[in-house]
Amino acid sequence: MAEHFDPVQSANESARESARSLINSARFGTIATLDENGYPFASLITFALDRKQTPFLYVSRLSAHTKHLLADPRCSLLVGDPGKGDPLAHPRITIQCSATVLDPASDEIIILRTIFLARHPKAALYIDFPDFLYIRLTMIEASLNGGFGKAYRLKPHDLR
Amino acid sequence: MAEHFDPVQSANESARESARSLINSARFGTIATLDENGYPFASLITFALDRKQTPFLYVSRLSAHTKHLLADPRCSLLVGDPGKGDPLAHPRITIQCSATVLDPASDEIIILRTIFLARHPKAALYIDFPDFLYIRLTMIEASLNGGFGKAYRLKPHDLR
Repeated sequence: MAEHFDPVQSANESARESARSLINSARFGTIATLDENGYPFASLITFALDRKQTPFLYVSRLSAHTKHLLADPRCSLLVGDPGKGDPLAHPRITIQCSATVLDPASDEIIILRTIFLARHPKAALYIDFPDFLYIRLTMIEASLNGGFGKAYRLKPHDLR
Repeated sequence: MAEHFDPVQSANESARESARSLINSARFGTIATLDENGYPFASLITFALDRKQTPFLYVSRLSAHTKHLLADPRCSLLVGDPGKGDPLAHPRITIQCSATVLDPASDEIIILRTIFLARHPKAALYIDFPDFLYIRLTMIEASLNGGFGKAYRLKPHDLR
C-alpha cells in the first residue's frame, strides 16, 4: 500500500450523526496532554457539554492533566465505549482541542456547575472545592473511527 | 493548598499489585502519541503482554498512532475499565513508554503473533496483513490512580 494513501474520508451526514451521538452520550473520556517535558500523557477525565455543545472539565489543580493544561492548552479527547467483544469494532472519536481555563468568578460558572452536577451527581462531593477549575475544550478538528476502514475527519461545523 | 504539594506517593505493595492486575487484565487501552505537529493525540488500541510482561501492539501502518510512533517513540498508555457508577472511583494506570517497532523478520514475531492471537482471537482476520507492525512499549514510569487521593508513582521494577 502506498505510503501516502490517506484512509481518512471527509465527513458525511452519517459520520456527523455518529460523532454527535458519541459526544452527547459519553460521561467520560481519555484526555491526552503534554507533560512538562513535552511527553504525551493519557488520563481519564469526566466531562459535560455546555449550552453550545462544547465539552468542559471540572478538575483538581492537583491532577496531572490539569497541571499540563495550565502550562500548554493543546490536548486531545477520546470518547466512545469499547463495550463488549472486539474493542476496535466500536465507534470512537478523537477530538483535538485547545483548553481554556475559565475564570472562577465569571457568571458562566454558575451555569456550568449546574450542568456538571446534573451529568455527574457524584461530583456533589467536591463541586465547590477551591482547588478545582472549569476548563473548556474548544474543538479544532476530530477523527471519527467507525470501525475498520471507516475513518472520517470532522471540522467544528460538523458537530454543531 | 500549596502549589508545590505533591499528592503522588511512592509505590507500596498494594499499589504494585493493583498496577499488575490492571495491566494483566486489560485487553485494550488508550494510547497518547504526538502527531506531526507535536500535538497530543489519544486513540484506542488493543495490546497484549510479551513473556517479560511488556505490552506490545499489533497495528496498521495506516493508523494515526502508528504513523506518530514511527516518527516519535514517546507515548503513554492508559488502562483500567471505568466500569459502572463514578468512572473516577475505579483504578487506572498511565504508563509512560518508549515505542520500539519490531523487525517483521525476527524470530520473536512468531511468538508475539501467537500471544496476540490468543489474547485477541478476532485479530485472526488481519494477523498476517503486510502493512501491520508489532510495536513494543517499554515502560519508563507509571502513575497509578486508585481513586480520589490514592495516586502512586511506579518504576519499571515495581511491575516485574
